[in-house]
Amino acid sequence: FRLEMDIKLLNENKPCKRFTLYYHDILFNGTNVANATSATAVNRTKLGDFKLGMLVVFDDPMTIDNHLLSPPVARAQGFYFYDMKTTYNAWFSYTLIFNSTEHKGTINIMGADMMDEETRDLSVVGGTGDFFMTRGIATFRTDTFQGADYFRVQMDIKLYECY
Amino acid sequence: FRLEMDIKLLNENKPCKRFTLYYHDILFNGTNVANATSATAVNRTKLGDFKLGMLVVFDDPMTIDNHLLSPPVARAQGFYFYDMKTTYNAWFSYTLIFNSTEHKGTINIMGADMMDEETRDLSVVGGTGDFFMTRGIATFRTDTFQGADYFRVQMDIKLYECY
Amino acid sequence: FRLEMDIKLLNENKPCKRFTLYYHDILFNGTNVANATSATAVNRTKLGDFKLGMLVVFDDPMTIDNHLLSPPVARAQGFYFYDMKTTYNAWFSYTLIFNSTEHKGTINIMGADMMDEETRDLSVVGGTGDFFMTRGIATFRTDTFQGADYFRVQMDIKLYECY
Repeated sequence: FRLEMDIKLLNENKPCKRFTLYYHDILFNGTNVANATSATAVNRTKLGDFKLGMLVVFDDPMTIDNHLLSPPVARAQGFYFYDMKTTYNAWFSYTLIFNSTEHKGTINIMGADMMDEETRDLSVVGGTGDFFMTRGIATFRTDTFQGADYFRVQMDIKLYECY
Repeated sequence: FRLEMDIKLLNENKPCKRFTLYYHDILFNGTNVANATSATAVNRTKLGDFKLGMLVVFDDPMTIDNHLLSPPVARAQGFYFYDMKTTYNAWFSYTLIFNSTEHKGTINIMGADMMDEETRDLSVVGGTGDFFMTRGIATFRTDTFQGADYFRVQMDIKLYECY
Repeated sequence: FRLEMDIKLLNENKPCKRFTLYYHDILFNGTNVANATSATAVNRTKLGDFKLGMLVVFDDPMTIDNHLLSPPVARAQGFYFYDMKTTYNAWFSYTLIFNSTEHKGTINIMGADMMDEETRDLSVVGGTGDFFMTRGIATFRTDTFQGADYFRVQMDIKLYECY
């Protein structure tokens, strides 16, 4: 007699779902109302020279490739702020919102964005709809920085709990 | 010989615990100190006409029916901010605090509040005390909006992990 | 024939990993640039006398004992704000960042800090690297308050999901 059974083991190399999206942040500069998708809600403090305290609220498009004008497949709504006095470093908390024929639902993400690292991992802490109760890792990779008003981040979403 | 066993399967229609509460937000307007339970900590930006960037900190009562003056069964402490330039849309992160003979503990919730939808789902990402390590979904339904200073949201809390 | 098997039961008294760290918050007061590790990004509102609305962004050292000058074993990056009009009470969301030979990875935490309680529990909602996909409880205990510029909190981190 032999009993075989699966035990719940999460394997970092085997997410149950995985996809890569690009996050485009166009910061409001006072004149670009039509294009801007985020705005500085709180100004930087005087501690250090790296915008510590500056908090940005966003409703940014997510695309499957790195072209700003590609049709968005999701929105990212939430905020980030800068938090270090010795380098650029941010902290994010936001929701990916899917509302298409392919996917309906949300994914909630939070964590530190240590911009000096080539990649950095944030936590997927929950989901709803098609992503009901999911958890996982969101790996950020800076794709480009263009002046003060536009940057793009590749987000590699790896889900390890899928229901 | 036949082996039957339960596998951990979450069924969206069968939460292990479920209850509905009403959230009452009375915004401080400069004169209602006695009644106000929330305050605008960050003013809106000039991006769009829907308060984008306005951030509110709250310590709001939660009741079991939709009467503001019913005895609170919990407090909701946290914040929300508006994040869209084309419509009213918010993002919440907060803690439900229970401190009664019936329940002691907290439930932590975050997610997007797409106010144009009749209902919207946020994530219950953790809990403590009687709600030790819980996870689930919090479904928002706007119950009423009364001017700029008061609104009420029905929150249907469905927990799928109970220990 | 007898079948014995373990079921996933979380026991509040048996975390799979546990450690205690001290959080040191030195608030920027306008002159202490060298020492400050946090700054007030949003000023208090006029609702009540307990700093309601004041929001602080931090990049604070975490040490294994309660000496400010002990070598940090991690950083805590995130924010807190005060949220009650009748007493001092805060709400935290932050990331513990480990980057040493012993531990590499992050732990994400959020919840209410009811400062009047001797201890209070927040949720560990996710982790990365060495703390891949972890969940648990972070118990706060105020260690000291020194004027407006320095306070220290003991954080007892108990993880119940370890992979």
